[in-house]
Amino acid sequence: MADQDAQSRMGIEPHAVLRWDDLPDGPALALLDQTRLPAEEVELVCTDVPALVRAIQVLAVRGAPLLGIAGAYGVALAAVRGDDVVEAAGLLERSRPTAVNLGYGVRRAVGAYRAAVGKGAGPERAAETALAEARALHREDAEASGRMARYGLALLDELLPGPGHQLLTHCNTGALVSGGRGTAFAVALGAHREGRLRRLWVDETRPLLQGARLTAYEAARNGMPYSLLTDNAAGSLFAAGEVDAVIIGADRIAADGSVANKVGSYPLAVLAKYHHVPFIVVAPTTTVDPDTVDGASITVEQRPGSEVTEFTSLRAGDAGGLLGAPVGAPAYNPAFDITPPELVTAIVTEGGVVSPVTGVGLAELCARSSQVTIS
Amino acid sequence: MADQDAQSRMGIEPHAVLRWDDLPDGPALALLDQTRLPAEEVELVCTDVPALVRAIQVLAVRGAPLLGIAGAYGVALAAVRGDDVVEAAGLLERSRPTAVNLGYGVRRAVGAYRAAVGKGAGPERAAETALAEARALHREDAEASGRMARYGLALLDELLPGPGHQLLTHCNTGALVSGGRGTAFAVALGAHREGRLRRLWVDETRPLLQGARLTAYEAARNGMPYSLLTDNAAGSLFAAGEVDAVIIGADRIAADGSVANKVGSYPLAVLAKYHHVPFIVVAPTTTVDPDTVDGASITVEQRPGSEVTEFTSLRAGDAGGLLGAPVGAPAYNPAFDITPPELVTAIVTEGGVVSPVTGVGLAELCARSSQVTIS
Repeated sequence: MADQDAQSRMGIEPHAVLRWDDLPDGPALALLDQTRLPAEEVELVCTDVPALVRAIQVLAVRGAPLLGIAGAYGVALAAVRGDDVVEAAGLLERSRPTAVNLGYGVRRAVGAYRAAVGKGAGPERAAETALAEARALHREDAEASGRMARYGLALLDELLPGPGHQLLTHCNTGALVSGGRGTAFAVALGAHREGRLRRLWVDETRPLLQGARLTAYEAARNGMPYSLLTDNAAGSLFAAGEVDAVIIGADRIAADGSVANKVGSYPLAVLAKYHHVPFIVVAPTTTVDPDTVDGASITVEQRPGSEVTEFTSLRAGDAGGLLGAPVGAPAYNPAFDITPPELVTAIVTEGGVVSPVTGVGLAELCARSSQVTIS
Repeated sequence: MADQDAQSRMGIEPHAVLRWDDLPDGPALALLDQTRLPAEEVELVCTDVPALVRAIQVLAVRGAPLLGIAGAYGVALAAVRGDDVVEAAGLLERSRPTAVNLGYGVRRAVGAYRAAVGKGAGPERAAETALAEARALHREDAEASGRMARYGLALLDELLPGPGHQLLTHCNTGALVSGGRGTAFAVALGAHREGRLRRLWVDETRPLLQGARLTAYEAARNGMPYSLLTDNAAGSLFAAGEVDAVIIGADRIAADGSVANKVGSYPLAVLAKYHHVPFIVVAPTTTVDPDTVDGASITVEQRPGSEVTEFTSLRAGDAGGLLGAPVGAPAYNPAFDITPPELVTAIVTEGGVVSPVTGVGLAELCARSSQVTIS
């Protein structure tokens, strides 16, 4: 029990989630295998790019910013081993075709490698440059996470009167998706570390249960006061005045400030509006997509109904019976939903806070933020 | 496939859910075993009260009105067999102490039995009277269901302009909880049979999945156009204009019109209000509790967190990994929530419709409704 408590206080160290290791036999990328969480904490060691590609494909490593970092280190891994860097980059980029950040990280490391070669560096020196670029991306992401946490915490202190905050979150936005402490979760963790988190309410986040599996795991590992709930129980908490603010991440933010995020975010925004509770989105400026004009322009990915209907064996509490929908039941399963800017109290980025949320305010903040540009 | 279609068109016949059988060996109560649904349709035959008590305790038969009917038949079963009627009534009443309707049904049948004995009837004649009372309660409940369906359908036609309705429902309110076609589900079924149901959206209803397991099963058996969804995906449907009305049942209605129903009902009411969509409650007048002044006076049952956190093996869709919350994760698990009258467009009962929902309107309707009074 004492060991468990000590472990809990440690939280999840970023180097446990993803780490470059210079082993005696050669370099390796060590990953926390997210498919085994929360049941087991197992490290997956990738010593070449094909192994890393498999890890990405089975979702052992996941989360947009973290995939970018993994991609950059993957290029460095190929370069240091003397493998074909261009071929490795192609394999990595194609491993999850829809992950924008993955391509971003890969292109940054390849760009650095090529620039070094262009300046006359030999393979070893160019590989060092690629690795340095991956480390820089890793560090930048961790720093962005830290800045979002500080801006978010200051915003909470401004918006909420009480000394202890009760925050409600959805999906997983912590150390498991980032090179640092994450986005929305990092704000809650910051509040906890300063003794200002009364409770983190964790939506289980059906159908894939990222809240129950991953956010509850992260909260427990950090010793945070938290409670899990079914997504539909949030209404009761709002009605009872037990939610001071909603704090979530974003998959994409349109130019007008519309926020695409995990399905279930929009109903929370409506509940927050109805109960006069702030609804706060935390995401790096790279999440803002100036080419997407508004929420209606965002295509919502429809995922297989089997994610909703298929349960092989689910203990039925007091019912003691079989659970699961009828075989072949049709299901509606959008991956995310869109929250319009008028329901968003603030968007917190590493470059500052936009509130009220307007297209002009968002564009100004993004223009101010320093962003590394890739050729 | 043809057989399956024919079966689907039949729907669930009330006599398949609960039926008195005069078998050659003696009387029996035949029940559709709800713990085996939707995987298997298995009939459970109870030839004495201890067997029926076990069926009630394991939730093979469930749902407030249906429990009342089962309790009344249970008393008749004991009487016809020549068992001790008072002892049987006690066993039945105690089998689920919180089920108000169960005690109501038991007391009605015992009252009829005693009245017959008081008038000089022998055991056989008194047993016939108890059975007649159980059959009367069964018939009354089926008739109430039919009346609610007609009132509800007329209300939908009045409120909704289009010829085909898209209705969203939560939990299970059909033939599996009633002597007839149910409450809210009976309205949707009525719309379907008149060709006016475009789609029934079925909330899965976490944590015990009554929507996925039972409502989807009932919709499929009736050949209704339906889609299952995670509870948190309803927001996207409202935003897309795909919900014409929300239609749900009630566990208890306070004197002021506040509605206690399965957790997840209140967020739907807030979403409905925000999107200007009617929110309709369908329940018999026996659900109205004049002794409960308002919503705040209703005690919300908190159920074990294990219903939320425990999954033995849940297929993770594309994640391919283990699901479930960390061991010992604390969870908030209210069984139901309270929707205030200002969010309820109408309450539909077997005696008519109350709209707008006010304490005075509700009291008048209940006074008008003929109710059998038990001494």
